[in-house]
Amino acid sequence: MAQVTRLGITLGDPSGIGPEIVASALATMPHEWRDLVIVYGDRGPLERGAHAMKVTLPEVDVVGEGTGEGAVPGKPDEAAGAAQVGYLEAACAAAVRGELAAIVTAPISKTWARRGGFPFMGHTEFLAARLGAKKVAMLFAGPRLKVALTTVHRPLAEVVADLSTERVRDVIELVVQSMVRDFGIAAPRIGVVGLNPHAGEDGLLGDEDHEIIEPAIEQPLPPAELFGPLVPDAAFRDALFGKYDAMVAMYHDQGLIPVKLIDFDEAVNCTLGLPIPRTSPDHGTAYDIAGHGVARPNSMQRALALAIEMIARRGS
Amino acid sequence: MAQVTRLGITLGDPSGIGPEIVASALATMPHEWRDLVIVYGDRGPLERGAHAMKVTLPEVDVVGEGTGEGAVPGKPDEAAGAAQVGYLEAACAAAVRGELAAIVTAPISKTWARRGGFPFMGHTEFLAARLGAKKVAMLFAGPRLKVALTTVHRPLAEVVADLSTERVRDVIELVVQSMVRDFGIAAPRIGVVGLNPHAGEDGLLGDEDHEIIEPAIEQPLPPAELFGPLVPDAAFRDALFGKYDAMVAMYHDQGLIPVKLIDFDEAVNCTLGLPIPRTSPDHGTAYDIAGHGVARPNSMQRALALAIEMIARRGS
Repeated sequence: MAQVTRLGITLGDPSGIGPEIVASALATMPHEWRDLVIVYGDRGPLERGAHAMKVTLPEVDVVGEGTGEGAVPGKPDEAAGAAQVGYLEAACAAAVRGELAAIVTAPISKTWARRGGFPFMGHTEFLAARLGAKKVAMLFAGPRLKVALTTVHRPLAEVVADLSTERVRDVIELVVQSMVRDFGIAAPRIGVVGLNPHAGEDGLLGDEDHEIIEPAIEQPLPPAELFGPLVPDAAFRDALFGKYDAMVAMYHDQGLIPVKLIDFDEAVNCTLGLPIPRTSPDHGTAYDIAGHGVARPNSMQRALALAIEMIARRGS
Repeated sequence: MAQVTRLGITLGDPSGIGPEIVASALATMPHEWRDLVIVYGDRGPLERGAHAMKVTLPEVDVVGEGTGEGAVPGKPDEAAGAAQVGYLEAACAAAVRGELAAIVTAPISKTWARRGGFPFMGHTEFLAARLGAKKVAMLFAGPRLKVALTTVHRPLAEVVADLSTERVRDVIELVVQSMVRDFGIAAPRIGVVGLNPHAGEDGLLGDEDHEIIEPAIEQPLPPAELFGPLVPDAAFRDALFGKYDAMVAMYHDQGLIPVKLIDFDEAVNCTLGLPIPRTSPDHGTAYDIAGHGVARPNSMQRALALAIEMIARRGS
């Protein structure tokens, strides 16, 4: 039954900073993780990344088909676009076969991935499709704030059309599940943020807080405690002061402005609702600095460490 | 010509925490400000506020008609509603006569002020009408962040309908004017925040950043430098790190989430565009604690100090 499963790391766009941050994270991780890790990516870019970052690559399994071997840092092309999709497909196939306990993904270029045959908005939608998850949510987990998003990449004018009681409830449930099993919080306190200024001020500033969000909180969800709809401009301050373990935000910037302000580049992007944990650093391919050896591996190191933590908690 | 002008403080709702925070701020202010200050409010509530806060009221001018004398802390009524409107009307009349160099307002209750014959959304709209200002904007000035709002008390779904290039430009101009003359920043760097996630990501996530906000920034505005439309989730972090002197946010929570997260209760609410500076603490009447002597006067103290600073800068 209990066969050893691995932690898969996808290299992302081989012409971005992925190879550098992955190489750095591998070089600085505890030795005992080496047998656990398997990198989906080509060895050439990974070794060039290690060279650029002046780190020694430890002995880890690297699985690639050579399609990204020719990638030039900062110069994305069709081949690199196809390669990054290939890395993800390989990792997902392994996950579906039950070989992976978690996936950590380095940044892809949505533009070049699409040219490489990737008909998804991003990693989250791709992973949900490949791993058969019906309900997923993005959670940004920093050392001080944890914030999940109800709606994500939508123009502000379309946020309201995308909100529903069902979706808010789904995200709350995904967050509670993750707090308990991935973060080890036995009775998580979840702050559900209102949509409108002052959470609608009794309908004076909008009805959605009362009509859409409130019904999603009414039904208890033990062992969690649910709070809301919270006044947005006070909610994150209260969370920072320890009143809530995790927040459910209604739209992209409502959640990401506080996370990035407070946790800077230490926040890890987690996908909730997949059969296995998935984490990723909270930045892009950064072509402008790719290959220069100046990429900051912090976020990737944290993504890797958090994935390991989650594996340990789920295994226990 | 140069007759001495005064700094008017309105007592706000006499049944709220206004009398306590005003009494505390008066008691702790430098002695040399005593001749400058004139309080629009009734002496009874002010003295009871001082007593509750265990402070000694200094000798300052107090102008009131007694209408709020009977106010009971935590028990708002029609008389208190009418009184708070009366204080504001008296201060505005003095300002129109050229007798005030600035106004500091303690919190009113919108509900009770309206019952007292106050047909305005809040202080800002009232002051704009009474002092004949066509274009005004709210600026929250904290020790670390300064953020002005383009739209304020609107349901999120209506924000886009309220945005226009003209309004964004007006707010930018008001902020620049204030940074130079009120805050003494000779060449302010103004960060204009986008509306949509990633500031629209080239139209993929909305057109308003490009179509409405961009044209408001194109025309230079010396001595200021204008930046934007900025990616919202990175903009406030950059401001915190010193990249911008002030931010122009597009909607209430986009601006207030970061200000309240970073500057807690130290932010002062300023009205830009009036003939004289107006500041106020960044909280409400707090009926639940009124009269208990536990109100925190910090924000009122800062509002008073900032008004004095602004008077000094404009006078010089």
